[in-house]
Amino acid sequence: MRLPVAAFLIAAVSLIPTQPPRRPASIILTGGVVVTMDAEGRVLNPGAVAIAGRDIVAVDTPEAIAAAYEGSETINVAGQVVMPGLINTHTHAPMVLYRGLADDLALMEWLQKYIFPAEAKTVTPEFVRAGTRLAALEMIESGTTSYADMYYFEEEIATVTKAAGLRGVLGQTIIQFPVADAKTPAEAIARAERFIRQWSGDELILPALAPHAMYTLDMATLKAVRAVADRHHAPVMIHLAETRDEVQTARQRHKTTPAQYLESIGFWGPRTLAAHGVWVTPAEIRMLARRHVSVSHNPESNMKLSSGTAPVLAMQRAGVVVGLGTDGAASNNDLDMFEAMRQTALLQKHASGDPRAMPARAALELATINGARALGLEREIGSLEPGKRADVITVSMATARQTPMYDPLSHLVYVTRGDDVQMTMVNGRVLMRDRKVAVLDRAAVIAEAHAMAAMVRQAVGKRP
Amino acid sequence: MRLPVAAFLIAAVSLIPTQPPRRPASIILTGGVVVTMDAEGRVLNPGAVAIAGRDIVAVDTPEAIAAAYEGSETINVAGQVVMPGLINTHTHAPMVLYRGLADDLALMEWLQKYIFPAEAKTVTPEFVRAGTRLAALEMIESGTTSYADMYYFEEEIATVTKAAGLRGVLGQTIIQFPVADAKTPAEAIARAERFIRQWSGDELILPALAPHAMYTLDMATLKAVRAVADRHHAPVMIHLAETRDEVQTARQRHKTTPAQYLESIGFWGPRTLAAHGVWVTPAEIRMLARRHVSVSHNPESNMKLSSGTAPVLAMQRAGVVVGLGTDGAASNNDLDMFEAMRQTALLQKHASGDPRAMPARAALELATINGARALGLEREIGSLEPGKRADVITVSMATARQTPMYDPLSHLVYVTRGDDVQMTMVNGRVLMRDRKVAVLDRAAVIAEAHAMAAMVRQAVGKRP
Repeated sequence: MRLPVAAFLIAAVSLIPTQPPRRPASIILTGGVVVTMDAEGRVLNPGAVAIAGRDIVAVDTPEAIAAAYEGSETINVAGQVVMPGLINTHTHAPMVLYRGLADDLALMEWLQKYIFPAEAKTVTPEFVRAGTRLAALEMIESGTTSYADMYYFEEEIATVTKAAGLRGVLGQTIIQFPVADAKTPAEAIARAERFIRQWSGDELILPALAPHAMYTLDMATLKAVRAVADRHHAPVMIHLAETRDEVQTARQRHKTTPAQYLESIGFWGPRTLAAHGVWVTPAEIRMLARRHVSVSHNPESNMKLSSGTAPVLAMQRAGVVVGLGTDGAASNNDLDMFEAMRQTALLQKHASGDPRAMPARAALELATINGARALGLEREIGSLEPGKRADVITVSMATARQTPMYDPLSHLVYVTRGDDVQMTMVNGRVLMRDRKVAVLDRAAVIAEAHAMAAMVRQAVGKRP
Repeated sequence: MRLPVAAFLIAAVSLIPTQPPRRPASIILTGGVVVTMDAEGRVLNPGAVAIAGRDIVAVDTPEAIAAAYEGSETINVAGQVVMPGLINTHTHAPMVLYRGLADDLALMEWLQKYIFPAEAKTVTPEFVRAGTRLAALEMIESGTTSYADMYYFEEEIATVTKAAGLRGVLGQTIIQFPVADAKTPAEAIARAERFIRQWSGDELILPALAPHAMYTLDMATLKAVRAVADRHHAPVMIHLAETRDEVQTARQRHKTTPAQYLESIGFWGPRTLAAHGVWVTPAEIRMLARRHVSVSHNPESNMKLSSGTAPVLAMQRAGVVVGLGTDGAASNNDLDMFEAMRQTALLQKHASGDPRAMPARAALELATINGARALGLEREIGSLEPGKRADVITVSMATARQTPMYDPLSHLVYVTRGDDVQMTMVNGRVLMRDRKVAVLDRAAVIAEAHAMAAMVRQAVGKRP
């Protein structure tokens, strides 16, 4: 029996379900293993992430995303992991220009014979810009999307960081002795306050104060820093209890421990991040938790300089937020956060005697959501969730050393390197794609670094 | 004044110095930083290496090599390091198929719930071939040219290793309980002896015996192994004092320590390599030195499984030859010897409290010339010297994380990964060039590994 054509058409049309129009997305990443790092620890395999402008708008199955979103661009990332960009909570970006300058030395010889003389003779705005460009290149190439920095001429670092499209919590260094960008701590504090005013409200740069450490600053300066921070609600970053020497200094000068000394002078306050925390006592850990002071753990630097093992597990149990850092490249010697994750897992297992300590997921948390918490940015970054900024990386899982794959989280921590990162995106902007960095002239950055290195060699009398 | 043409020609020809004819070379690598690892620790920057057939024939400046040798092929390796291929003194190659199968577990849970069941259900000649091919791919891609192995069906491993062009000291496992390739230790010893006869005299494969450990073998079997080894002058590899549990077992069963127990039964002999040696006492260290027993240090595995810190510096001071290993990928989780170098440097600095401990050069020695010594192959491999086999790798130094470069040795240990290796050559044969592996079908090897992984998942009840 033949139906009349019109009747057939009416029947056919009525079978099409009425679909709501698809919402627009700038980029859809689909088909990869999506490691969200959200509170439920969801891993979608396969999954998809829809991004609109600077924001993540949806994280779901490929089918659900395809049904709900129309992407200006849809990128198939099958065979890759899609995850939050990594957050480096402690570095000194321009020090990439000193990497490998002087290894395998006692700390004081390293500082006094190489690092301090090199810094005294070479740190200029130009040097800092060149170093930050090189560091930005390395971070983008290894999947770091946000970083916390403590150095000199931090306004130059801010300018370069913003141009490179990275997110930075950038702290102007305050230290007692004369340095390249300030003759006195008062001058340094004034610089820092100008820096904070200048960059306040920026979408990528969060300006901060970076008092160097309790042993390199007097009480008046430390108190003045806290006052400026409170006035501007600015983050504060400080080195804390990195070495046994620091603890001894605190004992000799103040008859107490470093963190307790800072407590006694009213230094601790909101948005404060302490780097290292290797030698904090149980009482200090409780105090840091009470004061909501976060800690940046730097396992590679701590091992390389024989500083010790930070009590990361004890700090976490006490409620201290712990993020992960690489420290400067002069003591690491790179900015690869995948290595930092692997090292924190290995070091905590080693130190605790328990191979279950710091499992892969916990190491990943340190480098993502806990890093965000440590910087006070957990509402913006640190996980793949709708409403957060699109700070996203994709990571290839195709190498021989990643074959086979039973567990993507294990692979991210134990066999992945920064070089496996394929795409790096911050605030919805693609900084690197298929390992091609879009925001920096790679050859020019490297040539500039070589020129700076020639100057460094001369400064420390090292033959080329 | 014009000279007659003939007179001019005679004058010109007489100015050409008489040069000896240049000797032939198959390959000349020129223009890179040549890190020889010879007894003088020479680094030629730039340097060149001439290779004729399977041998290195000269190591010198580019000019001297160009004057003395005519290469069938001359390869410009400017911007790269040329160095001896890395020597992995302890692994279980096919276990790459278990990498990441079960991390972050207590040792006994890991072994009994995952590794032993997986091995019982999946280890077949086919599995071992597939795993070894994947391991060979990974080793070639990361600059390992020689490796020492302990596993089952070692004859399959030998066949694949030789086909892939790698050098192997390959030990047939002997263990008390029934395993895939032998129902009894007697059967395993018979297999091992057949294996040794079969491969004796091979240019790449050195067949060996691999009694598993003192706690998994009875006295009669250990003595029988030594007798077979002595009869064939074959190398012997055994796990030694890896964990505290092993020490406790030795105490309970034999009222002594593992190495002393093996001494008391006459097990130690020539060409013997002990893996791990984490818990050896000072007296045992002296005994190992006296017996010329070498030790393979596996820092990543030791940290990941919370086994402890091997007393590498004390062993070296006592005259024990220490090589470096990755251990199997189930406990590492990869075969990257650059990571092993970095980890041994960091771990020894950390454990000793002295940042000068295990400097870059010492870590490099562990992975090259000392590895060769540990395997009894120091006359053939381990350094770039005329007369040795051409086991050579070239390593790129062009990444952002390797910029700038003040010291190539520092960079090799602290910022280089296996992925930076550009060329891998064994016995003068190029196995990889410009990161393209010539000796294995990469896609087929990886596809085969995926198929095996599906079987492993089923065996341990792990969802895909």
